[in-house]
Amino acid sequence: MKPFLDEDFLLTTETSKRLFHTYADVKKTPIIDYHCHIDPKEIWEDRQFNNITEVWLGGDHYKWRQLRTNGVPEKYITGDADDFEKFKMWASIMPRLIGNPLYHWSHLELKYYFGYEGNLNEDTAKEVWDLVNAKLKTKEYSVRNIIRMSNVKLICTTDDPADSLEYHKLIKEDDSFDVEVLPAWRPDNAMNVEKKEFKNYIEKLAKVSETDIHDFDSLMNALDKRMDFFASQGCKVSDHGLEFVMYEPATKEEIDGIFSKAMNGLEISRSEELKYKTEFMLAMARKYSKKNWTMQLHYGCKRDNNSLMFNNIGKDTGFDCINDYTPSKCLADFLNNLASSDELPKTIVYSLNPQDNAAIGTVIGCFQGVGLGDEMGVRNKVMQGAAWWFNDHYLGISEQLKSFASLSTLGNFVGMLTDSRSFLSYTRHEYFRRILCNMIGEWVENGEYPDAEKLLEKLVKDISYNNAISYFGFDLEMV
Amino acid sequence: MKPFLDEDFLLTTETSKRLFHTYADVKKTPIIDYHCHIDPKEIWEDRQFNNITEVWLGGDHYKWRQLRTNGVPEKYITGDADDFEKFKMWASIMPRLIGNPLYHWSHLELKYYFGYEGNLNEDTAKEVWDLVNAKLKTKEYSVRNIIRMSNVKLICTTDDPADSLEYHKLIKEDDSFDVEVLPAWRPDNAMNVEKKEFKNYIEKLAKVSETDIHDFDSLMNALDKRMDFFASQGCKVSDHGLEFVMYEPATKEEIDGIFSKAMNGLEISRSEELKYKTEFMLAMARKYSKKNWTMQLHYGCKRDNNSLMFNNIGKDTGFDCINDYTPSKCLADFLNNLASSDELPKTIVYSLNPQDNAAIGTVIGCFQGVGLGDEMGVRNKVMQGAAWWFNDHYLGISEQLKSFASLSTLGNFVGMLTDSRSFLSYTRHEYFRRILCNMIGEWVENGEYPDAEKLLEKLVKDISYNNAISYFGFDLEMV
Amino acid sequence: MKPFLDEDFLLTTETSKRLFHTYADVKKTPIIDYHCHIDPKEIWEDRQFNNITEVWLGGDHYKWRQLRTNGVPEKYITGDADDFEKFKMWASIMPRLIGNPLYHWSHLELKYYFGYEGNLNEDTAKEVWDLVNAKLKTKEYSVRNIIRMSNVKLICTTDDPADSLEYHKLIKEDDSFDVEVLPAWRPDNAMNVEKKEFKNYIEKLAKVSETDIHDFDSLMNALDKRMDFFASQGCKVSDHGLEFVMYEPATKEEIDGIFSKAMNGLEISRSEELKYKTEFMLAMARKYSKKNWTMQLHYGCKRDNNSLMFNNIGKDTGFDCINDYTPSKCLADFLNNLASSDELPKTIVYSLNPQDNAAIGTVIGCFQGVGLGDEMGVRNKVMQGAAWWFNDHYLGISEQLKSFASLSTLGNFVGMLTDSRSFLSYTRHEYFRRILCNMIGEWVENGEYPDAEKLLEKLVKDISYNNAISYFGFDLEMV
Repeated sequence: MKPFLDEDFLLTTETSKRLFHTYADVKKTPIIDYHCHIDPKEIWEDRQFNNITEVWLGGDHYKWRQLRTNGVPEKYITGDADDFEKFKMWASIMPRLIGNPLYHWSHLELKYYFGYEGNLNEDTAKEVWDLVNAKLKTKEYSVRNIIRMSNVKLICTTDDPADSLEYHKLIKEDDSFDVEVLPAWRPDNAMNVEKKEFKNYIEKLAKVSETDIHDFDSLMNALDKRMDFFASQGCKVSDHGLEFVMYEPATKEEIDGIFSKAMNGLEISRSEELKYKTEFMLAMARKYSKKNWTMQLHYGCKRDNNSLMFNNIGKDTGFDCINDYTPSKCLADFLNNLASSDELPKTIVYSLNPQDNAAIGTVIGCFQGVGLGDEMGVRNKVMQGAAWWFNDHYLGISEQLKSFASLSTLGNFVGMLTDSRSFLSYTRHEYFRRILCNMIGEWVENGEYPDAEKLLEKLVKDISYNNAISYFGFDLEMV
Repeated sequence: MKPFLDEDFLLTTETSKRLFHTYADVKKTPIIDYHCHIDPKEIWEDRQFNNITEVWLGGDHYKWRQLRTNGVPEKYITGDADDFEKFKMWASIMPRLIGNPLYHWSHLELKYYFGYEGNLNEDTAKEVWDLVNAKLKTKEYSVRNIIRMSNVKLICTTDDPADSLEYHKLIKEDDSFDVEVLPAWRPDNAMNVEKKEFKNYIEKLAKVSETDIHDFDSLMNALDKRMDFFASQGCKVSDHGLEFVMYEPATKEEIDGIFSKAMNGLEISRSEELKYKTEFMLAMARKYSKKNWTMQLHYGCKRDNNSLMFNNIGKDTGFDCINDYTPSKCLADFLNNLASSDELPKTIVYSLNPQDNAAIGTVIGCFQGVGLGDEMGVRNKVMQGAAWWFNDHYLGISEQLKSFASLSTLGNFVGMLTDSRSFLSYTRHEYFRRILCNMIGEWVENGEYPDAEKLLEKLVKDISYNNAISYFGFDLEMV
Repeated sequence: MKPFLDEDFLLTTETSKRLFHTYADVKKTPIIDYHCHIDPKEIWEDRQFNNITEVWLGGDHYKWRQLRTNGVPEKYITGDADDFEKFKMWASIMPRLIGNPLYHWSHLELKYYFGYEGNLNEDTAKEVWDLVNAKLKTKEYSVRNIIRMSNVKLICTTDDPADSLEYHKLIKEDDSFDVEVLPAWRPDNAMNVEKKEFKNYIEKLAKVSETDIHDFDSLMNALDKRMDFFASQGCKVSDHGLEFVMYEPATKEEIDGIFSKAMNGLEISRSEELKYKTEFMLAMARKYSKKNWTMQLHYGCKRDNNSLMFNNIGKDTGFDCINDYTPSKCLADFLNNLASSDELPKTIVYSLNPQDNAAIGTVIGCFQGVGLGDEMGVRNKVMQGAAWWFNDHYLGISEQLKSFASLSTLGNFVGMLTDSRSFLSYTRHEYFRRILCNMIGEWVENGEYPDAEKLLEKLVKDISYNNAISYFGFDLEMV
């Protein structure tokens, strides 16, 4: 029997172990975290945490959901209970979370960052609290030092077009911190025409971009200016949150009409919403293609399902679910519209519905390569993204990798991201790499791939690190 | 190589074996069968079976389907062929059923109840027939004794609101039988407004409840009275069979109009059907919340697909299939309606579509806990139910457990049920517990969970037995 | 560690190895390839290939997609680059294809047909090119000899009703080649009423069948004549390509109206298309039932998604994807329509959407057996087909087998087919049989099935070979 969470955690064959320890260990092969939700201000200010509750339970709605699932009242979750009381609640439900990624992640973090080798439960809560908090108070555990300790080379945050990017600038200018912290472009607020906040947002955007926004074209002009600004700060990726990838093309007149309705505070019908969003996404994509940015499509989420809690504690608090209406037909038609005029940018497709793995694997295969071009193009121009959010667990990661391998080219995969708000979450890269190396090692030992060290080294390093550099075009050395 | 169906059947690691034999063996940890379709009359009368065909082929449409799948004419299935001839037909197709749960279940039953260790096929049909029938004729194999032999502590049957529950009463009053046999409330007949039988059923219900039913409110009053009666007989759970969990809210006037159309024999449109059923389910759920009953939602089934056979041998005869239109959106909206006014009862969600595992795991996570309340609430107030019917096999059970573990809290799981019409089917609990212990044992041996006996004992016993007591509120001792 | 692709490739238990080598090895148990897309003309002419690029990259859009996925320009795919340059491109991307079925298939073909035991990559491209091409030039590697070398006994091609079947006739009359090459009936062109080519096709069919086609009935008469002709050439199976199995029944008048619109070049609405196709499929199915032909339904594909490439290089070039709208409801209603009048033919259901496995497994279970008949019928009259196209990989094959075993009768399964345009693709049968034997061997060693040689031999041989003979009614000896 393997001890709990030892160095060979999740590694079941000798080849798997060798590959992980030689080529994928985070201490040897660094991390590029090309999609996350951390706040660059906290990096700039080099925030220091008072205790583990701040890091773990301050903003992590994964953990909040589990607390609620175990009957814990909101006072110990988002409420005003004492930080140790909150932590004890979390510790007390841990043993029940067998098989949950939070069980693995929490212990990986305790071990990697704090050297704790036990298991967290009600009885050990106090010893973990003391151990971790003592370390958190030292300078070694400032945000920047945690990032350094994690061997992270590059971070892409997630930013609104109207954002000033002031902290990105400050970090860039600060020679004492050599991790790249780049913005990523997420223009959802300019797309969500059906929302009450739309009008205000457009007015804000007009101001920030110094552009008079009165129709769809002028909105695009404003966004263009902001994209140039983002590009000047090193931005190379965009990100979109969609219910599903819709495809309801419309004329310029229709879109201007819908835009005008929204700006006049009139209600937008579902059909109008789909049309506006389709044309918005097409227009954005064409711009990414010109700028050689990568378009990330995150879809398949139905948000804010619990009205009572939404009205009381707002959005992104743990009340979202998988939307299982995610038609592959529309995704294909959307990509085709762009490909037909050679304006399809590099695109990464992430569905929250894990049943989409196979459909995505086949849709992306229709839009690869260079069309009628003559030069070698980027590998997997259209990519399926890593298992995301509710799928970011052992099974979800394995299934995404096996599906991608079966239907696309695994050797081109751009690898893991944290998608996280937490500075301790880089162990998710370790988690992913263990699963990856285990899978490859099992294939080799089962005679499905040659035991050819050079080929295996390349596969593991590429997927863990190098592919992200070549795909996104980051300015980093390969390993 | 492990011998066929030996004591370590399905258990692949040492830890798995230890956990099963120490904590999950049915002889040590008893059974709560909180959802089944057995007839309480047969328990009251302590029925004795003449032969294995009566037990196995008398009402089991799982087996009927397999006989038809192997080209067997109806005369040997639901027809008038001799019982031994029928049994021989079944025996003769057994070897082809490799990998089918019926292969496992049949042999588990032969071994557990009759001590038969061989494999059933055409050649062994006679020896099995003789062995089993000789035992069945003894008093030790009366229905009550089979239940005792199975170490069952509590059974919930499935009952119509108009049912007299006379046999539940008689069993309760009989001191010689100490297994609890409780009714469960299944008001489908009052929901299926589109069916021809609706009007007659409502008239019957009016009579039984001594209530004048002339609109939706008076229907609810009649059901209220019957719920009180069911509660007086120990009922704590309801059950519903739905095509999918729909959500088409409507006004009181609309619903009264639809009800009135149905009572006047007019045809109900699809839209009217969905509205009526939505409001019916919401109204029922609010009542469950008040009474602290658990609401079970069984959905994703398209029934009676073969008109020829339906017209000849009726419903529940093996002609149902998975409906793959099961929108997570509607399920979320339905639960939200109830949660928003704090009227959501404990709810168990079962979809017949196994592709729904992940969506369900995320939807239930949006409606846990105590809302704005201050006291600890029930764990996994909203639960995903055990793999059901067509999913009740090795793969389906494993996948449900892994999905539930990944997205919710496995340690809270309320465990297995037979969903059966057969008194020999309690070995399905053993089957489930073997899969559960194997999974947990594999995790421990792979370093994914600590080898901490106390924690493991609690997990296995809770999921096998204790959680059902605390969740439903049964009056039983924990183990 | 098992060496790469050795004789025990994919076989992980001793029982798996024994079963494969004793009963499933292609050298011992021959191949029936009941569904493929090879050109009978090439068999008749006994085509000889100049080099491996002709065989591998001449028409295989699976490989074309992978080349595009790796950024390779069309000139090296479907364009005019030198054959060796094309092959080198393919070789160079191979190492990245870890986990892809093309990695396994390519190496199985190199080993089985050419004795190559290394792994193909940029460095070994030249040695493979030389080795293979030298062999391909010898008479031993003519198309007929490759088929003989593959131990193939029977092939069903895929043919249009208007086809002359001249090469089938010639092959049949040629005593020097004793492999049966039978036509299969694929009347998609007469079904696709929405396509521009419909009118021309119907005119062609009228001519070939010497029938005046002016309405739906006369179309059916023309098809009847062609079916008789196909039957005279040994045809026993049909095949259909459908977006999904639709069910929109219509009156004769409606269908004649739609047919007439199409013949007059008017546009057909989506609703008209669905109605026409439903009635077309029902009418065809009734004819198959009369002739005792098997109906194959291939559905779940959205074709020609990349307009730019479609306009430049046409259809079937690698731009298709999975359609995830495949309602089980319609499939059930379609089959019920036929079953209710006892006109349901033997039917094999293949969905390109792997999420359909469970739904299909339950739908087919509703239409088995002999209805009200008294005689034993064909086993698994309605069958789920082998994992198809995008699912034809380790995972897809395993999942289809496990799902079919769990929900239907695995011992009745009609086994593998190549679905291929390539004469080297028979190793896919080997691939399938290895997965099958591994699964069965694992079950036996895990105590899930008795280690009873006679039963195991029957299962493996039946699924590999015999079941196809008894199900389709081919005139071959069983093994």
